[in-house]
Order: sequence, then structure tokens, then C-alpha cells
Amino acid sequence: MLSENKYSTIKDILREMNTVDIAQLISDIGSEDQVKIFRLLPKNSSAEVFSYLEPDTQETVINSITNVEIRNLVEDMFVDDAVDFLEEVPANVVTRVLAQTSRETREIINKFLRYPEDSAGSIMTVEMAAFHCEMTVDDAITDLRRTAQDKESIETCYCIDNQRKLVGVLPLRKLIVAKSGTVLESIMLDDDRLISVNTLDDQETVAEIVRKYDLLSVPVVDNENRLVGIITIDDIVDVIQEENTEDFEKMALLLPSEENYLKTGVLRLYRNRIVWLLILMISATFTGMIIENFEDKLALIAGLTACIPMLMDTGGNSGNQVSTLIIRGLALGNIKTSDYFRVLWKEIRVAVLCGLSLAVVNFGRMWIMRAVLHSETATPVFFVVCLSMVLTVIIAKTIGCTLPILAKLLHLDPALMAGPMITTIVDAVSLLIYFGIATLFIQAGYLIA
Amino acid sequence: MLSENKYSTIKDILREMNTVDIAQLISDIGSEDQVKIFRLLPKNSSAEVFSYLEPDTQETVINSITNVEIRNLVEDMFVDDAVDFLEEVPANVVTRVLAQTSRETREIINKFLRYPEDSAGSIMTVEMAAFHCEMTVDDAITDLRRTAQDKESIETCYCIDNQRKLVGVLPLRKLIVAKSGTVLESIMLDDDRLISVNTLDDQETVAEIVRKYDLLSVPVVDNENRLVGIITIDDIVDVIQEENTEDFEKMALLLPSEENYLKTGVLRLYRNRIVWLLILMISATFTGMIIENFEDKLALIAGLTACIPMLMDTGGNSGNQVSTLIIRGLALGNIKTSDYFRVLWKEIRVAVLCGLSLAVVNFGRMWIMRAVLHSETATPVFFVVCLSMVLTVIIAKTIGCTLPILAKLLHLDPALMAGPMITTIVDAVSLLIYFGIATLFIQAGYLIA
Repeated sequence: MLSENKYSTIKDILREMNTVDIAQLISDIGSEDQVKIFRLLPKNSSAEVFSYLEPDTQETVINSITNVEIRNLVEDMFVDDAVDFLEEVPANVVTRVLAQTSRETREIINKFLRYPEDSAGSIMTVEMAAFHCEMTVDDAITDLRRTAQDKESIETCYCIDNQRKLVGVLPLRKLIVAKSGTVLESIMLDDDRLISVNTLDDQETVAEIVRKYDLLSVPVVDNENRLVGIITIDDIVDVIQEENTEDFEKMALLLPSEENYLKTGVLRLYRNRIVWLLILMISATFTGMIIENFEDKLALIAGLTACIPMLMDTGGNSGNQVSTLIIRGLALGNIKTSDYFRVLWKEIRVAVLCGLSLAVVNFGRMWIMRAVLHSETATPVFFVVCLSMVLTVIIAKTIGCTLPILAKLLHLDPALMAGPMITTIVDAVSLLIYFGIATLFIQAGYLIA
Repeated sequence: MLSENKYSTIKDILREMNTVDIAQLISDIGSEDQVKIFRLLPKNSSAEVFSYLEPDTQETVINSITNVEIRNLVEDMFVDDAVDFLEEVPANVVTRVLAQTSRETREIINKFLRYPEDSAGSIMTVEMAAFHCEMTVDDAITDLRRTAQDKESIETCYCIDNQRKLVGVLPLRKLIVAKSGTVLESIMLDDDRLISVNTLDDQETVAEIVRKYDLLSVPVVDNENRLVGIITIDDIVDVIQEENTEDFEKMALLLPSEENYLKTGVLRLYRNRIVWLLILMISATFTGMIIENFEDKLALIAGLTACIPMLMDTGGNSGNQVSTLIIRGLALGNIKTSDYFRVLWKEIRVAVLCGLSLAVVNFGRMWIMRAVLHSETATPVFFVVCLSMVLTVIIAKTIGCTLPILAKLLHLDPALMAGPMITTIVDAVSLLIYFGIATLFIQAGYLIA
């Protein structure tokens, strides 16, 4: 339709579409048409659509529109969206955009850009509904009807005193059902029911609070308890997903990256992965040395070496299962470091059950395979393998529940103590157990090398 | 204070506290005091506090209060909270509770209990603000001021026609800024801007929609497009955390469980883990057979066996890193199955870089260790190990990005194709490569067994 210049038809279609869908549509088409479509947007929705665009599309649009258009766009955007956009684009674009905005907007944006990454200040917005606590319900509603269009969230209003200090919150529903003439102070939620965060609080802490108290938005205050902004739940949902992704990445021993996989360059992907691969490869050398050490003595006993991968894998998997549960429990606050002994006692019992089941099945499997394959594996080897299996699973589960909790106690990230790390440690331990037991059997005369 | 009978002081304190904190307080004290505290709660907050209690505390409270109290409690609760509670407690408690409620409430609850687990119907609530689309703004506001107290969410209102069919949504802010006399129909968002879900949609799909469109609540309609309920964002946040936990568990090959770790019994933990441990243990047998097969020929070449764990671990870790990124990308919708060849090409390049780096470092390490330990490992062994390393990493990364996408194409859960599964497969492949290359070197005369 663009090529046929059917602009007014397009305009009508755009008016009926959801802003998120428009943003997706614009991202999916060629960069020349992107700007054309963007210019056809109704005045009141272009800022919103712009906030939903990918950073590279935002850049394309900014580079193709006039300074006046830039000014209108940025002034119409919510501060948190404008800051998000400016954090992603190159410095020269930032300079050009900031040059077009009013001094007031520029000051606010600059202040936001100075908050530490991932702090409450960096994700908050300033377009909230704040009223003096001595106002009447009627004045507040009148004011709200006049200004609601410019607020990011009016579902909860905030009450402040003469020093702009936060003194209470007032859900919109309480406001509109209140009797005419009521003073806000008398119906607002204050004291213990007033929940707020500090500008420097970590976004993960903020997300935890919003989730715990089922809030639609949380007020952000500075060190003097002055209301400086709010964080709305839609941004919290993004924080939660971001933090989860970070945990997934850490658990696979990747350096966390905030970028979309398909847009991340090969070199960046390489850099995020190689560090831990190298560390773990070097660590696995010790496991190799253990094998080498016992090789001369044990390699001649049929069937012994063949069980190494099975023992190592089962140990790693057992440890991985526990550590995942513990890491997740710690992250969600269901498990505390003080629960360690309860966790350990539970895990030891689970490990005994798992270890015995695996040993029994494995014994059967070895027996059948010997019969089928006519191999010469001696029965005592079965006992060595199965005994090692039980002990390996118990130790793997112990390590798997201990390391994440230990990491938490040492103020390290428990997510690092996941599968790959546990596997490397358990591998070495399981081989030591295995060869130790085999040596004992040889010394006792049950096995002949 | 309870022991001193200072009930009115306690009452005053409770009045000032947040309901979530009260629920936590009640959960932390002895079961006798739980009921006492619960009875001291202000009438209008006891239902809310009750919804935040843990299921076992809810049961304790229900077993200690009168039938009249139960009736009031359940009638005051939001339907979704009442259903959540009834799903967790034993059947006899459910029967007693339902016997006390009004016929109307009972019918609604029973209907909810019949929706499939994890469907939109099972998590929705019926206490929404719905207006006929031909009403005026004034009538709607009057109605809302009268009934807001009983609604779970009024931040978005829903417009219906004579058949209760959903025809539009109306954010509260649009309603309160609208001019007096305006008909809802003329200001509501309809057509493409009206987003709704079906009662049978999966909660994960619902969460995805709410997240994508930054909604505070989403309307739920039946097959005839009649409005039957809404799902609010606080429940969506819980769904997101639940789905993430499920993915974490699946990726560690645990059967997913919705219970809190510390409250899960040993037998249940055992059952959730043993299935996959057994399957993977049996699978690792093949890796063992590969070792056994080559053992006779190769065991005598110094240094060859010692590198097995390092190769296996590095392969597993490399594959795990990719599969985690792909699984997460598929879950968040950043990667689609149609992106497979882009992903593969990217991964092959990353793998070559990673493989070469690891091989170079490993070559250095072997060289130094030989010098330090005066071992007899021949230089050709170094080449066998390093060449295998490069090939293993490339194949591991290929498998790591292929299996999750393949699983998605086959409508299996990609999360299963994570670390443990990839490791088991890559182990066997890496050994085949390793022994294959060693055999080639022997045949070419570079290595002498």
C-alpha cells in the first residue's frame, strides 16, 4: 500500500492497531518504509510506538526525522522510556536528541542517566500522580482528570507533605469511592502499609517487593524520603524476566548478556563463553591425572574403565538436580542459608534412595550384558561399580546442596554453582571413590589385576 | 502480648500492618495463636490475609473457626483466591467449606474447579468491572463508585453488549477524563486494540500476551466471546515465576513440582529425580562401550586415557552453553524455529573460535606438564587431543543448538534438551572422534601403541 501511496487507508488501519503490534510491524519492514509508516502514525500514539521499537530501528527513525519532530517525540515519551532509548543508541545520536529537548526534560534525563545500572533510579519514571496529603478528594480527582493523560500510572496515587516527603499511598479505587470533602490524609495508607524503595536499591530487590505485596507500582524515594518517581509493574515484569535469563546464563556458566541472541555478534558470544570453558577445561585436568594415576594398576581388569563415563555422568546429573533446586529456592526466597542442615538431611535420604535404585538397576544391566556379550567381567567388579555408584550419588547430592548455600554465605552468586561447576568437582571425587574402592578390593584379594 | 491478653493493642497494631506481612506473621507463630490472631483481624482485611496464608495454615484456621465465620470468609474472598485455597486443602475441608457458602458462590467455585489446571479459566477471577457499551460515562462512574470495593481490579473496565459479548476495553483513566454524557462505546478501545484470551488458553500464553502488551489485566472470554472473567497482573507475575521454575527444573531433568522444596517429602523428591537419572545412566553405558572397544588398542599409549574427562567435560559444557541460550530464546520468543540456519551458522563460527582457543591453551598445558612431570607422552598425542578438542567443540555446539530447536519442531519441550541430555550425547560423540583420530594417527604411523 505504501508503494501505491494509499496513505489515508494506512492511517486508518494504524489508528485501529495496538501500539505494540505497530512497533512489531515497523521492525519487520525495510528501513525506508519504517520512517514513512512512523510519520503516518496518529500524533498521540507515535511516542508510545517509538518506545516499543528495537534500538536499531529507533536509531534509523531518529536519523531520518527533523529536529522539531525529535523534540515533540522526546517530550511526549515517558522519562523511563526515553532513558532506555538513549542508553542504547550511539553517543552522537544522544547528543543530537538532547540538544532538541527542553532544558527541564534534559535535566531530568541526565539525572536518570547517572543512576547506577540496574538500580531503582534507572528504571523509575517521574510521571506519577502525587498530591499534597491535605488536599480534599474532590480537588485530587479534578486535578487527576486534568492531568491523567500525562501520567504513566494513576492506578495508585501518592501523598506527599510540604517537603515532598512521601507520607502515604492511595489506590485510585479508594479515591473515587471516598465521600466528597474527605481529606486525603484520612484515607491514605501510611506507616507500615506504606511500601517504598530507595533510588539506589537493586532492581531485583524492587521486583521482589512488588511481587510479594502484589503492587501495581512502587514509589521511589531519595535518602531524605522525598518522592522522586515510581516504578510500574510492566517494567517489573521485564526485570523479572531479565533476572531469570541472567540466572539461566550463569547456571550454564555464560557471562550474562542483556542482548538478544540473534543480534549478538560472534565475537561477543565467544567472549561470553570462553572464560569458563577454559577454567573448567584446566580443572578437568585433575580428573585426568586421577585416571592416569590408577591406569597402570587397573586398566587390565576387564570392565573397570568402561564404567567411568557412567559413574561420572550419573554423579554430575545427581548433583545438578539438587543444585538447581537449591539455587532456585534461594533466588525465590523459599530456602534460606539457615535451612542448610534441613536441606542436607533431606538430600542425604533422597541420595540413599536414588543411589540404591541406580545401583540395583546397574547390577542387573551388567549381569545381562555379561551374559549377552560373553564378556569376562568378574562379579566383584559389579560390586565395585555399584558400591561406588551409591557413594558417588550421596556425595554428589551433598556437594550439590552445599555449594550454592556456601556461595550465598560468602556473598557470591549461588547460580554459578550449577551443573557445569558441580560436574567438574563431582567427576574428580567420583573417580577417587571408584579407584579407591577398586584398590581395596584388590588388596582384599577379591579382584585380580 | 497474646499471653497477656492485650487484645486491643494487638488489634491496633494489626490495623496498621500490610496484609502480606500479617499473613507472614501468622505463618511464623504456633498454630494455637494463629487462630487467635486471625480472629483479631479487622473484618475487612481477614479475607485478604487468609488468601496470603500458606495452605497448611489455611487448613488450621478453617478447622478452628465456626461455620458462620467460614461463610463470611469465603464470600469475602475473591473467587480466584478461594479456588486456589480449595485446590490445596484435603477433600473433607473442601466439602465443609462449600457446604457453608451460598448456592451462587458454590456454583461459581465448582465451575472454576473444573477448568483444566494451568488454563486461563483456572486462574481468572470474576470480580471485574464490566459495563454495557451503551452506558454513559457518568452512569459507569456512579456504578463504579458503588461497587469498586468488591472488584479485584478496576484499573481497566470492560464493555459488553446485550449478549455479554466483549466489545471493548476502557482504561479507568480514559473513563475519568471523559466528558460528561459520553457513551462508553465512543471512547472504548475495540477491534485490533481489544486483546482477550480464551478460558482454555494455557497460562503461559496468557502471561506472554500480558507481558507483550504491558497490560494490567486481560479479559477472559468463552468460545462465544462472552466475557467470563479477568486475569490480573499480580497473578501473571506468579505464573511467570512458576513457568521459569518449571524450565529450571526441566533443564536439570527433574520432573517439575509446584511445591516448595522444604515442604516436599523425601519420597516425592526421589520420584522426581530417579526417572531421568536411570535413563541417563543406561545411556552412558554406550559411552562406556566405546571406551571398552578402544581400550585394548589404545590404553598402552601414555597420556591418551588421561585426557578423556577433559574432552568429555569440555564438550558437555560447550553444548550446555548453547542449548541454554537457545532454550531461553525459544521460551522468550526471541528465537524462532525458522531461525535455525542463522543460529547454526553463528554457532559454528563461535565453536571454531572457542575450539581453537581451547586447543592452543591445552597444547601449552600438556607441553608444560610433560616438562614438569617428566612424563613420556609423545608429541603426536598432543595433536590427537587438540584436534579432537576442536572437532568436539564444533559438534557439541551444533548438537546444542540443533536439539532444542528440533524438540520445538516436534512439539516436545525444548527445556529437556539442556545440559544433562546434551552431555550424555556429546560424551559418546566426543569419544568416537577422539579414538577415531587416534586410530588414524596409529595407522599413519605417527603413534606407536
